[in-house]
Amino acid sequence: MSLVVVGSVAIDHVETPQERRENLLGGSATHFSFAASFFTNVRLVGVVGADWPAEHTQLLNSRGIDTSGLQIVPDGKTFTWTGRYHENMNDRDTLDVQLNVFGQFDPQLPEDYRRAKYVFLANGVPAVQLKVLEQVPGRRLAVADTMDLWINTARDDLDELMQQLDGLVLNDSEAKLLTGTENLVAAGHLVRTMGPKFVVIKKGEHGAMFFSEHETYVLPAFPTSRVIDPTGAGDSFAGGMMGYLAEQDDFDPETLKTALAYGILVASFNVEGFGLERMQGITREDIEERMSDYHKMLNF
Amino acid sequence: MSLVVVGSVAIDHVETPQERRENLLGGSATHFSFAASFFTNVRLVGVVGADWPAEHTQLLNSRGIDTSGLQIVPDGKTFTWTGRYHENMNDRDTLDVQLNVFGQFDPQLPEDYRRAKYVFLANGVPAVQLKVLEQVPGRRLAVADTMDLWINTARDDLDELMQQLDGLVLNDSEAKLLTGTENLVAAGHLVRTMGPKFVVIKKGEHGAMFFSEHETYVLPAFPTSRVIDPTGAGDSFAGGMMGYLAEQDDFDPETLKTALAYGILVASFNVEGFGLERMQGITREDIEERMSDYHKMLNF
Repeated sequence: MSLVVVGSVAIDHVETPQERRENLLGGSATHFSFAASFFTNVRLVGVVGADWPAEHTQLLNSRGIDTSGLQIVPDGKTFTWTGRYHENMNDRDTLDVQLNVFGQFDPQLPEDYRRAKYVFLANGVPAVQLKVLEQVPGRRLAVADTMDLWINTARDDLDELMQQLDGLVLNDSEAKLLTGTENLVAAGHLVRTMGPKFVVIKKGEHGAMFFSEHETYVLPAFPTSRVIDPTGAGDSFAGGMMGYLAEQDDFDPETLKTALAYGILVASFNVEGFGLERMQGITREDIEERMSDYHKMLNF
Repeated sequence: MSLVVVGSVAIDHVETPQERRENLLGGSATHFSFAASFFTNVRLVGVVGADWPAEHTQLLNSRGIDTSGLQIVPDGKTFTWTGRYHENMNDRDTLDVQLNVFGQFDPQLPEDYRRAKYVFLANGVPAVQLKVLEQVPGRRLAVADTMDLWINTARDDLDELMQQLDGLVLNDSEAKLLTGTENLVAAGHLVRTMGPKFVVIKKGEHGAMFFSEHETYVLPAFPTSRVIDPTGAGDSFAGGMMGYLAEQDDFDPETLKTALAYGILVASFNVEGFGLERMQGITREDIEERMSDYHKMLNF
């Protein structure tokens, strides 16, 4: 079943305690698409400038990702993000952000995208996320990501968005901010009362939590000592999760839990290289092998 | 199989954002013993002063805990700890510590304790922990806890202790401090190269990690929104783990993983009340019921 993702497409410059790398293929929609492409057909909606390297598009196409929704603004420049990770590889400082063409992003979905059943709204202005939902009235499942900036500055739009969502994905600090509560179990269920039928709280190296009316659970991250670049981990998590749901064309509780696990595993590959480098070297079989290890880990 | 624990027995004064409670039954050996008593016979070694309430000892005895190793110093006062938890219920400030008789703790195991097969050295001076090990030469399994203070001030003794341990239990920040590495997976295996055959890293609300020569895994905490008082969570975790190992009289990889899960579940009860209050209201059946939920949570 086809899956549409709308979000940022960017050029990243990333510095870690070990290394500095420039001009990486970045952005939320990009990491999401790549992760989801191991499971289903992905249709990407984003915007880039004239400086966007054609080989980046080719790389996405090589994974079967439909980029006909990727708008190129001839006289514009691509969104760039420059960040530096701390020694702990969790905290990071944003050194520079140039929104460029992404600042005026007004996503128009191609006609064939509008029949999509599975939709993911990567982190972005809630008013824009709402406008995307209007373009896919026949959707079966809409899930969005958000961030502290919108919780603090666009709460009304975010509240309206949450009323229309099936699922919301956010990280632990965002869940605490949105609800004003420090206990993540309580926070997860509080977010659910704001509209989404289910809520996923991403905890980075500590895994992810799931909340629905009848379910509360936590799955741990896959333990890896090779954390090279965490950029895009949350988006690749969402990509693995949504990709699996679209592949199964189902989202019953059991499928959702398996989808969460796939998200965790795809994210664990994502962090093992800069940008999408590690993801370029894996296959669905590698993911299945890690799933087998993950099952063994959680079985006793 | 009998289990000996050596550690602190204390009177705690605890303040949380919701409530302040005084004169709670506290201490590492106490929380450990109580947790382990759901699984096996526990023999406690500790020291208290003349102010120690007899009903605290009676409470321990009511769980079948052997307190013949609990020394009462007639002209001394019991160790007291006063702490305040932050809004997040993870961070805390120690407001006051009165070591009192625990400052001169020189554990002498009763004769029948010295034949114990399972030994747990709760957090304490490494030189003292070493002297305890000399008193149980026929032990099958010795596991210890430690803390930042000893890593910083008694490293030589701690290094010698680690050479003699089967297992070391410590929390995430202590593992980072001991190894100088931020990645917990790398840190866990590094600690293992310092001596212990296996290492357990406690991550509080994020669960626990296990490291041995051939195994690396993470189990999540049991999600609870009722976090009333986290004091003693780490000790009750260790108590549940060691209690189960002593009950099974085995520590093969499969038994160790199940033991880790029991530790996690017992700790999840411990935090649901002040001091040992919640633990006083549960039975082995309650633990088994939560284990059944935990299995379901990790099964997909």
